[in-house]
Amino acid sequence: MITSTTGPQPADFADVRATNLAVVLRFVREHAPCSRADIAASTGLNKATVSSLVADLIDRRLVRETGLTENRVGRPATMLVLDGSPYAAIGVEINVDTVSAVATDLAGERLLTWRRSFSGGESVSQGVAGVGAIIRRVVSRMAKEERQVLGLAVAVPGLIDVQGTVRIAPNLGWRDADLGGDLAKALRDPGFPIQVDNDANLGALAEQRFGAHAGASDLVYLTGELGVGAGVILDGRLRRGGRGYSGEIGHVQLDPEGPVCRCGRRGCLEAMAGIGAVLRRDPSPAEIQIEIEEVVRLARAGDAGTLGTLAEVGRSLGRGVSILANLLNPEVVILGGYYVPLAPWLLPGVHEEVGSRVIAAEAGGLQVVASTLGYDAAALGGAARVLDSVDSGKLPGGLSRIP
Amino acid sequence: MITSTTGPQPADFADVRATNLAVVLRFVREHAPCSRADIAASTGLNKATVSSLVADLIDRRLVRETGLTENRVGRPATMLVLDGSPYAAIGVEINVDTVSAVATDLAGERLLTWRRSFSGGESVSQGVAGVGAIIRRVVSRMAKEERQVLGLAVAVPGLIDVQGTVRIAPNLGWRDADLGGDLAKALRDPGFPIQVDNDANLGALAEQRFGAHAGASDLVYLTGELGVGAGVILDGRLRRGGRGYSGEIGHVQLDPEGPVCRCGRRGCLEAMAGIGAVLRRDPSPAEIQIEIEEVVRLARAGDAGTLGTLAEVGRSLGRGVSILANLLNPEVVILGGYYVPLAPWLLPGVHEEVGSRVIAAEAGGLQVVASTLGYDAAALGGAARVLDSVDSGKLPGGLSRIP
Repeated sequence: MITSTTGPQPADFADVRATNLAVVLRFVREHAPCSRADIAASTGLNKATVSSLVADLIDRRLVRETGLTENRVGRPATMLVLDGSPYAAIGVEINVDTVSAVATDLAGERLLTWRRSFSGGESVSQGVAGVGAIIRRVVSRMAKEERQVLGLAVAVPGLIDVQGTVRIAPNLGWRDADLGGDLAKALRDPGFPIQVDNDANLGALAEQRFGAHAGASDLVYLTGELGVGAGVILDGRLRRGGRGYSGEIGHVQLDPEGPVCRCGRRGCLEAMAGIGAVLRRDPSPAEIQIEIEEVVRLARAGDAGTLGTLAEVGRSLGRGVSILANLLNPEVVILGGYYVPLAPWLLPGVHEEVGSRVIAAEAGGLQVVASTLGYDAAALGGAARVLDSVDSGKLPGGLSRIP
Repeated sequence: MITSTTGPQPADFADVRATNLAVVLRFVREHAPCSRADIAASTGLNKATVSSLVADLIDRRLVRETGLTENRVGRPATMLVLDGSPYAAIGVEINVDTVSAVATDLAGERLLTWRRSFSGGESVSQGVAGVGAIIRRVVSRMAKEERQVLGLAVAVPGLIDVQGTVRIAPNLGWRDADLGGDLAKALRDPGFPIQVDNDANLGALAEQRFGAHAGASDLVYLTGELGVGAGVILDGRLRRGGRGYSGEIGHVQLDPEGPVCRCGRRGCLEAMAGIGAVLRRDPSPAEIQIEIEEVVRLARAGDAGTLGTLAEVGRSLGRGVSILANLLNPEVVILGGYYVPLAPWLLPGVHEEVGSRVIAAEAGGLQVVASTLGYDAAALGGAARVLDSVDSGKLPGGLSRIP
């Protein structure tokens, strides 16, 4: 039998309304304030349909009318903006020594940004207890603001399969953990969906929605933590691979004669261009931030040894970025985590190697930039993943409310 | 402004019919012989809609009724199969010394398979004249069979941008060539669309539709020609990157101290695992096939030097495949071209390296296999690309024929 997955999916008239509600919601997200006529003109939907869809979105409190009117010929139009005041999206990032939590409203405006110390190196159950306690406080804060939580997505540094099971999180020492299920129990079935994802994947979703290159179709986000991972967005969507394990660039070998990596192999990207290579040793997680600040101070002061190390690490990182560029031809590779404060000294070496190693002219249009989203990019990406679900048509309230 | 490309596209009721025609066509392709009731039951479309859509597809001669009836309780049903007898899809592969052409019917059955010698190393205009003459003969053959050509896709070994312009085809010596436009002129505006694509991309499309792993969502095809390129299918679709230059694995560096590559760099995959590494020199294109046959003969005879070379090339190829597996987590990597006859001796080394280098357990589910499609996989992929267009809703006749 010949099968093909390239074609469109079946659509019947019942699907159309759900699809179109999401289309109108996204239009308002991107173009607010806008009128019903604007929506009709841009989407090709007729005005009566748009009016009915907008009424539904207003009923769900996803969209609201403003007092504003458009200053143009003809009858003044009532303008629409995102509402979402009764909703919140929550993202959480688990790291070795900290948990970050972010909550946003439907428009992506931050409602809350927390960072708490955490001892993730203990067992999964202790980890779940600790993270669960933090999430409960976030949820309770949202409840006080009378917001319904649309969903929660949790970033974990490790291999997460497509079902959301944590297969291996080496730096946490976790293995085969049903983190989402355990958190649902710890939160006593909170009534919103809980998703678990790789930290680099969620970093990429954060960049796609909130970053300086938001909307780029082909974007790779590189974490610069103890490990180095990639979140790969191609044709506008995160690409997870068959089992969800894409983006494991950290152990791609750059040099068979290179330094020994924590994984036991030689010359891995992580060993040559990870934070350990910058600090020239494997630091304890709690010390990294302080040590990176010291590296930045020395680099600013022109310390030759530090500048030499950063130039070398930048070139190694550039070799890794070149592999991404040759294989995937992204428009932009975004350096996250601890790469951000180091970027002024890393980027020249990255550009040098990218320029000489990428086959396509002008590196296929590639830009390499530092993230503008700060250390909680992956947590913010958790909120982005929740908002992506809404934008894809999983609207709160559900279609059962439509008469 | 916050933009997002993750949501569904707008749909209005006029789009629905075009979408559903394609859905029904694909259902018949995958499940024929089948009844109208089968289509309704599986797609969720109601029976009246299905009847109307089927009537339209019969009118376009894309589907036909057979005399068969289903042997089951109730009124016997008329069964439907693909028709497509008035149509043909054409794929052509340009290589350094040969042009291959394949034509298939709508069901993908081969109507014609040609291989002609060709001197592609000359100028683009001479190349176009030569390829154009071959295509004209294919088109004329199809005309004799009273078939309308649905489209033509041409595979070129090189960097092809998303508009189909040949940016660089190093082994042909072509650069910045509007091959599609030139061919349309040479064919005197033949009335069917002409697409130009990278050979590895079309090889991947051929595997997706016709290969032993047809239907795999995450599949990478590796060409084993003078150059090595990758065609990357993720989530069921070819991923081209921002400008169309994805899949350039040939010049990913495996070893900074490795042998000098034709590109001037050291230790590229192509230098360590390309056909030149098997033959231990850069052969002339015309000699490759004969020389590979000699390598196979020596390997079968147990020649130690040959076996050692193939084992080493296999391990280098495995290092390249491991990079793909770590970055993209494909279900299957398919070795094409001259890798196919050499696969029995290459695969052990590939599996060895993949097993030790891929971070995910069981290499993330990866299988590495030899293509079953033969040397004209890329030409066949050209036909597949044309059929993909039809399956995506670009039906011959167009919606203007609907009253």
